Amino acid sequence: MTEPRETDTDAPEADFQLSRQDIDAINKAVDDGDGPALDAALEPMHAADIADLIEQLTPARRREFLHLYSGEIDGEILSEIDESIRDEVIEQLPHEVVAEAVREMDSDDVVDLIEDMGAPEQQAILAALDESDRAAVERSLTWPEYSAGRLMQSEVVTAPEHWSVGETIDFLRAEEWLPDQFYHVVLVDPRRHPTGYVTLGKLLASRRHVLLGDIREDSFRTISARQDEGDVAHAFNKYHLISAPVVDDDDRLVGVITIDDAMSVLDEEHEEDILRLAGVGEDSAISDTVVETMRQRVPWLAVNILTALVSASVIAFFEDAIARLVALAVLMPIVASMGGNAATQTLTVAVRGLATKSLTRTNALRIVRRELAVGLGNGLLFGLALAGVTYVWFRDPKLSLVIAMAMVVNLFVAALGGILIPLGLEKAGADPALASGTFVTTVTDVVGFFTFLGLAAVILL
Amino acid sequence: MTEPRETDTDAPEADFQLSRQDIDAINKAVDDGDGPALDAALEPMHAADIADLIEQLTPARRREFLHLYSGEIDGEILSEIDESIRDEVIEQLPHEVVAEAVREMDSDDVVDLIEDMGAPEQQAILAALDESDRAAVERSLTWPEYSAGRLMQSEVVTAPEHWSVGETIDFLRAEEWLPDQFYHVVLVDPRRHPTGYVTLGKLLASRRHVLLGDIREDSFRTISARQDEGDVAHAFNKYHLISAPVVDDDDRLVGVITIDDAMSVLDEEHEEDILRLAGVGEDSAISDTVVETMRQRVPWLAVNILTALVSASVIAFFEDAIARLVALAVLMPIVASMGGNAATQTLTVAVRGLATKSLTRTNALRIVRRELAVGLGNGLLFGLALAGVTYVWFRDPKLSLVIAMAMVVNLFVAALGGILIPLGLEKAGADPALASGTFVTTVTDVVGFFTFLGLAAVILL
Repeated sequence: MTEPRETDTDAPEADFQLSRQDIDAINKAVDDGDGPALDAALEPMHAADIADLIEQLTPARRREFLHLYSGEIDGEILSEIDESIRDEVIEQLPHEVVAEAVREMDSDDVVDLIEDMGAPEQQAILAALDESDRAAVERSLTWPEYSAGRLMQSEVVTAPEHWSVGETIDFLRAEEWLPDQFYHVVLVDPRRHPTGYVTLGKLLASRRHVLLGDIREDSFRTISARQDEGDVAHAFNKYHLISAPVVDDDDRLVGVITIDDAMSVLDEEHEEDILRLAGVGEDSAISDTVVETMRQRVPWLAVNILTALVSASVIAFFEDAIARLVALAVLMPIVASMGGNAATQTLTVAVRGLATKSLTRTNALRIVRRELAVGLGNGLLFGLALAGVTYVWFRDPKLSLVIAMAMVVNLFVAALGGILIPLGLEKAGADPALASGTFVTTVTDVVGFFTFLGLAAVILL
Repeated sequence: MTEPRETDTDAPEADFQLSRQDIDAINKAVDDGDGPALDAALEPMHAADIADLIEQLTPARRREFLHLYSGEIDGEILSEIDESIRDEVIEQLPHEVVAEAVREMDSDDVVDLIEDMGAPEQQAILAALDESDRAAVERSLTWPEYSAGRLMQSEVVTAPEHWSVGETIDFLRAEEWLPDQFYHVVLVDPRRHPTGYVTLGKLLASRRHVLLGDIREDSFRTISARQDEGDVAHAFNKYHLISAPVVDDDDRLVGVITIDDAMSVLDEEHEEDILRLAGVGEDSAISDTVVETMRQRVPWLAVNILTALVSASVIAFFEDAIARLVALAVLMPIVASMGGNAATQTLTVAVRGLATKSLTRTNALRIVRRELAVGLGNGLLFGLALAGVTYVWFRDPKLSLVIAMAMVVNLFVAALGGILIPLGLEKAGADPALASGTFVTTVTDVVGFFTFLGLAAVILL
């Protein structure tokens, strides 16, 4: 969580993008090596916008930019920069700039910054922190990757529940180290177990003599530090949480997660799902170079060429049939393509249902039945339509019959694969989104070619 | 924004799902028509969980459930129920239950509930509200659909900036109508133009004589009521906003949007993108029946069968070539399938880049160049690999040459279509995610079949 910088309050771009003029001014300042002009152009900008700009520059211009602007790079900008180029940026900055930036950051942002670094780089950054911050970061790093313990910040405002509103306000006024932003006071017992919370709104609206225990929220939810961050984000979204206390294995308060961090995680999880479904490496970023991009995508294309070769060998098995009736070669991709599209539809709905936890034990059987019924219905519908087209085109009623039958079988199999493969992966503890289109469409390609050509061989020839 | 109900604080299910026992107990109570048992089973559950449960029941059991439980359905549960079944649920509830539920809801939730209803249903619900709430809802409905004006709640806590902390706290203590949750006091001038805001944390931590103007946040961002809700959600995520004041065309404060609503919108926008890319209607829901599901999917499959017929006619054009060399029929789906996969990769990255505003004017040209280079690189790589396989399989060096050339052309065209089609749609003001796989893979199918068979006809025959 970071505090926004001073921003131009008059005219934020309607679509939150930089204007053409801004970009030209910045590019010119960088190319001219004109530090003061660059500072002037960036002065009104929010840290998040400066970070976006840095991501969008070409690598060569980025180096030049960092050289000119390094004095102004602070903790906010650094924590906004995408992971894909953050290491590169840090390497190009003077050590003092990084050290100063890190000292300004909340513990959760420091953890996010260093968790993927090697031990020597981690140590260099930890050394810049004062002792209590360093201890907080090190404690956070003991929790598993992608856990609530990594996502939380250690700075929490707590009070015993027997305190009055007046005592709490006096305590807050006297306290030096309050976090930049906080939304609740967490009530704790003497052993630091959280027992409830009071919103700041209630605290402000209540008279000084009222006890915290009397204005606590009815509902209260703690999060285990071991909980997966994706589940945490889902809980924030579902239960409209604003912040939630994080507890260790002994139920003791160790930190707090705020909704803005949960929102970022939700955003990243969606991003991963959509990229995985499309067979793009989930770490791919807009700043990637050609080589990095190829490294992300080649593995999926390699899988696809292998599965396409399997389909090709199915076709090869029916070479004689095709040689005798070339119309088969003309029509076979239609059956396969419809199967691929129908499977992608079912697959996407299943993967999303699992990700949003709307596809659950309660309704899984019903959804499987629904998808199979839809597969059969679409198969009959499009099988009939294609039989009609085929008859008009080739005037061969048997060929029409074959293609209709193949369509029904393939769309039914598409539904079966589209729903059962992700459900099976989820049950096996794997990410259902890994069942990218590639795997499922292999099934529909193979089944499509095999049923169509096989039925043709039996019925027509 | 809703206040969570009392919840079981001891053991929230680790994965935020209902246990098998809970489900069985609830199903049994519904089947037995046992109202008290149902109340007891649901008593510890959060409104959001009860809403999920209602969504996941079969339509028949849902009717039974609502009959037994209608007395307990309140505003929180009603606003958590997915739009896809909300109308159905409302129809089955007694009018007094709905009226009572609506009276409890914040204005933004009422707007969300009624905005898609017909005029008579809207009037019936508005009539249940008291005059000031009804006026707030009606004002909100004058803003365009999917705008900030529809998303905001009208209840805002404001103060003049010349007030002191003490005056503000006294005002809050005296005020009766404070919103359930609020995070900022918005500073307004005498004409109700927002001029800044103070966080509740700062208010609590400052002495009574301090002026609000002196503890306002540096950065301040207002949102136009006409702004698209997707852009609003993006701004919340990017700038780590917790709440933001909404202004009308005269820059006057009309409401406030809080991050939990922005988070829901972000979630929905992702959902829409992923469903559109897969060619599934964006309104599809897990509770849809077979007929509703088919209605969502048939149009996309219909588009696909038409485009597949175009590909088929390309193949038909080369019937003679295939009749003379059946190997062509065996190999042609590989070239097409690789093109389809590569295009989906590029397309997904482009659509995501546009949605997250990381693909912008600044870097569009560079990304187009990168994608084309990747397309060419992958074309050469997989073209060579496939030429090798083809040689081993068919022992025909010319056929190997033909397939390698076709692969290079098709993967280059896949990259071109995958990046330029979404960029063009965005420029034309359309949703780039509408360039679903279906359209782009048509291009790669047609180009793949045409190049491969065309080159074969020229070089081999």
